Amino acid sequence: MHTVWPTEGVVERAAEGAPRVAARVAVAGATGYTGQELLRLLARHPSVSLTAAMSSGQSAARRLPSLSRLWNGTIVPLAPEALKADADVVFLALPDTAAAELAPSLVEAGVRVIDLSGAFRLRDAAVRSRWYPETHTLPAHVAYGLTERERGAVARAQLVANPGCYPTATLLALAPLAEAGLIAPGADIIVDAKSGVSGAGKTPSERTHFSECHGSMSAYGVFNHRHGAEIEQGVGRTVTFTPHLVPLDRGILSTIYVRVAPGTTEEALGDVYEHAYSGATFVRLVGASLPEIKHVAHTNFCDIGWRVDPSGRAILVSVIDNLLKGASGQAVQNLNVMLGIDERTALL
Amino acid sequence: MHTVWPTEGVVERAAEGAPRVAARVAVAGATGYTGQELLRLLARHPSVSLTAAMSSGQSAARRLPSLSRLWNGTIVPLAPEALKADADVVFLALPDTAAAELAPSLVEAGVRVIDLSGAFRLRDAAVRSRWYPETHTLPAHVAYGLTERERGAVARAQLVANPGCYPTATLLALAPLAEAGLIAPGADIIVDAKSGVSGAGKTPSERTHFSECHGSMSAYGVFNHRHGAEIEQGVGRTVTFTPHLVPLDRGILSTIYVRVAPGTTEEALGDVYEHAYSGATFVRLVGASLPEIKHVAHTNFCDIGWRVDPSGRAILVSVIDNLLKGASGQAVQNLNVMLGIDERTALL
Amino acid sequence: MHTVWPTEGVVERAAEGAPRVAARVAVAGATGYTGQELLRLLARHPSVSLTAAMSSGQSAARRLPSLSRLWNGTIVPLAPEALKADADVVFLALPDTAAAELAPSLVEAGVRVIDLSGAFRLRDAAVRSRWYPETHTLPAHVAYGLTERERGAVARAQLVANPGCYPTATLLALAPLAEAGLIAPGADIIVDAKSGVSGAGKTPSERTHFSECHGSMSAYGVFNHRHGAEIEQGVGRTVTFTPHLVPLDRGILSTIYVRVAPGTTEEALGDVYEHAYSGATFVRLVGASLPEIKHVAHTNFCDIGWRVDPSGRAILVSVIDNLLKGASGQAVQNLNVMLGIDERTALL
Amino acid sequence: MHTVWPTEGVVERAAEGAPRVAARVAVAGATGYTGQELLRLLARHPSVSLTAAMSSGQSAARRLPSLSRLWNGTIVPLAPEALKADADVVFLALPDTAAAELAPSLVEAGVRVIDLSGAFRLRDAAVRSRWYPETHTLPAHVAYGLTERERGAVARAQLVANPGCYPTATLLALAPLAEAGLIAPGADIIVDAKSGVSGAGKTPSERTHFSECHGSMSAYGVFNHRHGAEIEQGVGRTVTFTPHLVPLDRGILSTIYVRVAPGTTEEALGDVYEHAYSGATFVRLVGASLPEIKHVAHTNFCDIGWRVDPSGRAILVSVIDNLLKGASGQAVQNLNVMLGIDERTALL
Repeated sequence: MHTVWPTEGVVERAAEGAPRVAARVAVAGATGYTGQELLRLLARHPSVSLTAAMSSGQSAARRLPSLSRLWNGTIVPLAPEALKADADVVFLALPDTAAAELAPSLVEAGVRVIDLSGAFRLRDAAVRSRWYPETHTLPAHVAYGLTERERGAVARAQLVANPGCYPTATLLALAPLAEAGLIAPGADIIVDAKSGVSGAGKTPSERTHFSECHGSMSAYGVFNHRHGAEIEQGVGRTVTFTPHLVPLDRGILSTIYVRVAPGTTEEALGDVYEHAYSGATFVRLVGASLPEIKHVAHTNFCDIGWRVDPSGRAILVSVIDNLLKGASGQAVQNLNVMLGIDERTALL
Repeated sequence: MHTVWPTEGVVERAAEGAPRVAARVAVAGATGYTGQELLRLLARHPSVSLTAAMSSGQSAARRLPSLSRLWNGTIVPLAPEALKADADVVFLALPDTAAAELAPSLVEAGVRVIDLSGAFRLRDAAVRSRWYPETHTLPAHVAYGLTERERGAVARAQLVANPGCYPTATLLALAPLAEAGLIAPGADIIVDAKSGVSGAGKTPSERTHFSECHGSMSAYGVFNHRHGAEIEQGVGRTVTFTPHLVPLDRGILSTIYVRVAPGTTEEALGDVYEHAYSGATFVRLVGASLPEIKHVAHTNFCDIGWRVDPSGRAILVSVIDNLLKGASGQAVQNLNVMLGIDERTALL
Repeated sequence: MHTVWPTEGVVERAAEGAPRVAARVAVAGATGYTGQELLRLLARHPSVSLTAAMSSGQSAARRLPSLSRLWNGTIVPLAPEALKADADVVFLALPDTAAAELAPSLVEAGVRVIDLSGAFRLRDAAVRSRWYPETHTLPAHVAYGLTERERGAVARAQLVANPGCYPTATLLALAPLAEAGLIAPGADIIVDAKSGVSGAGKTPSERTHFSECHGSMSAYGVFNHRHGAEIEQGVGRTVTFTPHLVPLDRGILSTIYVRVAPGTTEEALGDVYEHAYSGATFVRLVGASLPEIKHVAHTNFCDIGWRVDPSGRAILVSVIDNLLKGASGQAVQNLNVMLGIDERTALL
Repeated sequence: MHTVWPTEGVVERAAEGAPRVAARVAVAGATGYTGQELLRLLARHPSVSLTAAMSSGQSAARRLPSLSRLWNGTIVPLAPEALKADADVVFLALPDTAAAELAPSLVEAGVRVIDLSGAFRLRDAAVRSRWYPETHTLPAHVAYGLTERERGAVARAQLVANPGCYPTATLLALAPLAEAGLIAPGADIIVDAKSGVSGAGKTPSERTHFSECHGSMSAYGVFNHRHGAEIEQGVGRTVTFTPHLVPLDRGILSTIYVRVAPGTTEEALGDVYEHAYSGATFVRLVGASLPEIKHVAHTNFCDIGWRVDPSGRAILVSVIDNLLKGASGQAVQNLNVMLGIDERTALL
């Protein structure tokens, strides 16, 4: 009486009509929050075949209930040789040290790598040795994967260092103004950023305990957070960066305080942004209305608003979903650029 | 330097390869929570053209920031004649009274209607007159849109009464057991249901104020909730139904207490469910591991778990996203069935 | 210019005019959530001297920032001999096994004990051996510390087994009706209980991770929770008890489904409750208006509401703060009863 | 069998031994969040008699379930003449306009007033006319009630303008450094403040709807918030103030960015704070460990932390409960100062 159909083959069916690049992709570090988001996105991606999902932790060889029917595979123990043999592109959602160790051998074997750790984000060796001492050298053909600003480099890259969540939200708002020379040279740049708890990762700790976060809020990593170095690299000068933990699951809001020349208008900033993000589907410019995390949660969008007063004080507000545009969504966006297909595939 | 592309035409492009049924659809009541979810789903649906989004409230003629780039239309004032002229299928996400008034004239004009209000859910005139006195008669060719159990009727329907959120979660778990004769006739059926606050709608009130809900919880509508009548209709006997408001945004968890014959096994219940939901992508059976709201939030899935003890006590737990499987997702699922296309289109 | 005063001596000053029983009390297990609440309450208690706060964990010898200025002591490693020497009454906020081991020797040394673990709650040896196998025998002069129902026994007790959080909320609503013979003998008693996450304790785990709880909800311990046995002991018959974890920090709401004789009125239940709780400050009867967790959070109150329909279905709703009336608040209430002072001291 | 006692007279009993100033106090605006906190605090205050609780809204003449047993009075319609006749001190928890209108006549009648609105906070007439145009003049003997910094003025005042929640958190951290001349004159002062939703008041609106706040966060009032003017008054220079709404109920965290002379140490700031808050029970200095909202929620404490880097960048973090130290708690603290009794009465 009822129409029934097989539950297998969903991905294949959805893929009809999409470009069949047939890239084989794998995920190393599949059980953390970013790993699960990667599986969710890749399972419905029409142009890739997800050949392996691996985990180095004790959670290996298990299935994920929230992904049932979306991805019916099994997570298996981390096996570097299998990654080299079975994947054209490997996503690394591993701790920094593990990524620093694994990535070079993958690149050497001709595999393209999208690394969600921080291991390869910092170009300056001295700065990198402070924050990521386990990363000795950068491979050739590394790109910093802030997609909207680095499409050309990403397209050619052998290894994409996927940006940190705070730097993604912050630099998408700050970098175009810096590049356009609008930011007054003398004054401080203050980045007051607020993140949901999923940004702290899945490993249980007192800091991520529900009862410690719920109804609370705190600053952390003051003057001492590696994402500060990443933001400074992106903007080319010193930045005061203070992250805060807020009682929500997914989302970052970055409030950025800069000085522009007195008399600079909000329209002038708008022009710079419009130029920088012409054709960029995932950056939405909301101007003086200011953005909210709710509008971008569970999406790959970055919404940017800004206000300027006559004396030259400018406040930029940028919001993203830290697990999507701030991690796995941007990683898939970079994959699309690397494969030469529509950047939005699997992301809208 | 950067590759750019037009931001228009996203829907068209994504649609390539999908069946082009070219149904024209419209949404009346587009600014509430279910209305917005409808727009989000329909905008990316490859087989429909969204010809109008209307609102009767003061919010008419505005744009929705969270939908920007996904749907670039404008919400306009409610205009029944335009609905008749420009749509093959109309979704009503209106208050009961407005839906009761509008739906018959749309049906008469040959438009197919998917009504998310409660106006046409109850078949028995006496029961309906208690809970929905503004609904005088049911149109011919009405179907109760609990998709997995009513596909045939939905396919042929002129008007689909989309089920309530609590009844959806509850009946998907309870109805197959009742139909199979497993539930002991003498004993009470208790449905203790918990809903996130979006289920209370978007209109601000003391009850939906953040500070009243956060850190709190309460029962409401005891012995006096119209969804109780809808559940009783679906299971054919008296049910004790108690809804609760819990401090989360999206999701329902329904805990159902029934008696089965002593000695009935969990496997026996599993067999009934497997048979009832063979091929039903959106019902996931998790058995004794019990489901969590987190696994279904932002999806159209209903996850069902169950436990039975030797004395015949059975506890069923069913979870859904109240705005998707409990409202707009199921409405689009019904649209797909009505159009004769893959039920999962735009929903995975 | 400004009036200043010493920050020491707050407790002494607040105590002026209160009865100076001068009981010396100590807390073993001072760093968990219930331990911290005990310190907070005892520090402002006018009739006791807090002589020691101990912890067996790695957090020993540290100070608690949230208690600064309220209690300026230091938490030291657990030292049983010091407890015997320096305290008249010892609160045990330890794991069951540790409490089962430590309590008898304290009692033997003449120290009175208020045990917040479950070790000594179950009177029947066979039932206890299933749930608390580490507890071999009950000391003489044990009282079950559900204060409003056991004041006489508590006053005389050498060891008070402080009730579990779920049993406290549930039995305060259920036991008077059972005792009065109002509950129909044939029908099931269903207890559907919902708890905030602090009830799961302070030890980090995947289950208590903010991102797993926020926006989610789940049932657990179905047919298999030791608080079920404690509730059954209190009501003298089989009870179906299902706890759920809800995304809030502090609070329990227990929804209880029973059958009473058809025609029994809500007034009849009210009379039973009024009689049972005459003069009981901490039980507030709200009748058909039903209680909310928000009204009791951060207090020692238990609010009880009830509804009855003509067919004899009765629904009781009871709410408490799980860390106060469900643990540390009731423990201090029991202390007051043991000391023969006003039960409300330090609790309003 | 059970010991029972009357539920009346709690306040009287608790008061034994406390100074019996016997001030008659009243609350106008008793049903909002700050009004309810006032009732809760005043009901257990040993030195006052709460003679009236009034409300101008439709909620008048009702009882508050959460205050049952703590305060058994009834809220009655606002009656200015009764306030003058029956109270020595009146708390105004009213909208700005209502307070601006009512306060002068109370003062004229010899009643002392503690005003929780903003009507009388700004001393400069030009600034005040921008933000509070309904306030034409300040009464004589007005004090700005930031208790720890204005005790002398508060003690003598006829009208105390109780500070705003954001200014309380911000100025307690910022003002001592400004007064001590530590803040570099040239550089911007940035105040990035985050508040729980109760700070937006009890009136339902889209902005305070649970589903709009939960899982979200946003900045508001940029360059245009009256609390910015209040902060500037307190620090004597221009301040960039950006408030944010965060998904928690009670609490403010203010992150303050200033420049100090290069080489200034954290110890130097600590010395200033120690001097400023010597003997101030409710200001707790946590230094480089940084404070959390959780530690001050439901208390009258303000916790202040700070970090300085060698180049002279300083970051101050200050947290309060917005309804207590940010409103009703500080109001009662001011009452205590006005009455010449221990500042901590009813607040620990």
